[in-house]
Amino acid sequence: MTKETNPLIRKLGASIRLSGEERTVLTDLTRTRRRFASGKEIIHEGDTEHRAFVLLEGWVSSFKILRDGSRQIVDFQIAGDFIGMRSVLLRTVDHNVEPITDIVAASIHLDEVMELFSSQPRVAAAMMWALSADEAIVVERLVSVGRRHALERVAHFLLEMRARLRLVGMGRQQSFPCPLTQYHLADALGLSAVHVNRVLRQLREDTGVTFRGGVVKFGNIDRAMETANCDMGYLDHGGLILE
Amino acid sequence: MTKETNPLIRKLGASIRLSGEERTVLTDLTRTRRRFASGKEIIHEGDTEHRAFVLLEGWVSSFKILRDGSRQIVDFQIAGDFIGMRSVLLRTVDHNVEPITDIVAASIHLDEVMELFSSQPRVAAAMMWALSADEAIVVERLVSVGRRHALERVAHFLLEMRARLRLVGMGRQQSFPCPLTQYHLADALGLSAVHVNRVLRQLREDTGVTFRGGVVKFGNIDRAMETANCDMGYLDHGGLILE
Repeated sequence: MTKETNPLIRKLGASIRLSGEERTVLTDLTRTRRRFASGKEIIHEGDTEHRAFVLLEGWVSSFKILRDGSRQIVDFQIAGDFIGMRSVLLRTVDHNVEPITDIVAASIHLDEVMELFSSQPRVAAAMMWALSADEAIVVERLVSVGRRHALERVAHFLLEMRARLRLVGMGRQQSFPCPLTQYHLADALGLSAVHVNRVLRQLREDTGVTFRGGVVKFGNIDRAMETANCDMGYLDHGGLILE
Repeated sequence: MTKETNPLIRKLGASIRLSGEERTVLTDLTRTRRRFASGKEIIHEGDTEHRAFVLLEGWVSSFKILRDGSRQIVDFQIAGDFIGMRSVLLRTVDHNVEPITDIVAASIHLDEVMELFSSQPRVAAAMMWALSADEAIVVERLVSVGRRHALERVAHFLLEMRARLRLVGMGRQQSFPCPLTQYHLADALGLSAVHVNRVLRQLREDTGVTFRGGVVKFGNIDRAMETANCDMGYLDHGGLILE
């Protein structure tokens, strides 16, 4: 079997054993591809028309802007992730989405998804699983920001991104490419950029983790895990949920 | 028409115009009721058997415990809310659920819900809407804890609970009964109990909000809204999504 290159198939294939037909359905779902440039919002808070995508290449951030202009990043999306599905049933979109890099994404339409739910219940279950796991990431971020020290937050975040990237076949055991800036980390983790900078220095000294030139490298995964003071069980990457 | 007393019907009825048959379906779904005592966990992190409920009376909290014993409350549930649905597709439950008061809840089974999805698509849409709105609350809490000052966080939280309670016909324009302690507020909002105490005092002085003897009273809603520095649009309480 050739190595699967469609990241949605890779991701959903981690939760159910996809048949040939199911792979074809997912290939069709992601056939209409578009490029979007970094830095240009593709979804805007308050929109009444909902847009949803599957991200195929690149990174995006989902965030809210407060009245005082400060930003809270809700999550980052990477290849294989859904974009804009969370609020698709709400009257208005409750967050903004902006590509961090140039991206390739496939538009998906709610009626296609609904059709999938009746014709392909296993694929639907895998999609629901993926959306549940995405929500578990947001919940865990709330735990981090509410109750973890800055050093734990940053270590935990980097380990989480490593695990998410590996699920879709990106990054290596000890490193991954990462286009985020210290401002992204700050706004995701409820810290200031200055604080993130200080914490990254401490993390390097304590555990050998480096974040330079767009690459995160772990000197020692176990030590980083210890510093993060958590396990990754909530990501639910434990194998198939459906044979 | 008599006043609806089933809080699930009240809640879902805020998003779709329920027919008589749809009301009957929801009444049936919540027929098997059980009482649970306050303080005894009904769902535990790491459980592999999933339990889901509709809460009919009382308040519960959903939370995670960190390795150092500290607690982050993810959300509170009130009458009409689903409990345990968020992680029902994950291999293991990713949070704990504990009644804050004695509660009455109806067990729901995943196969009943699945059956509903094929036989009652409008009710299914209303349920999906309710779950999306619940997720929007968690996202907004992340924004609060990550980027709002303590005073804004507390004011925002009290106004949010007021809006949620009013949706299911509980509380009044200017007040609502609230069984939470300052420890609950602290663990939900990423603060210490001492800090919450100080903030509540300031809130009373600034905006006339009081929280005493299990009742939250707003002296002046507009002033409280101004202090919270946000609107409640994310709750999506803007009327019917389906006629």
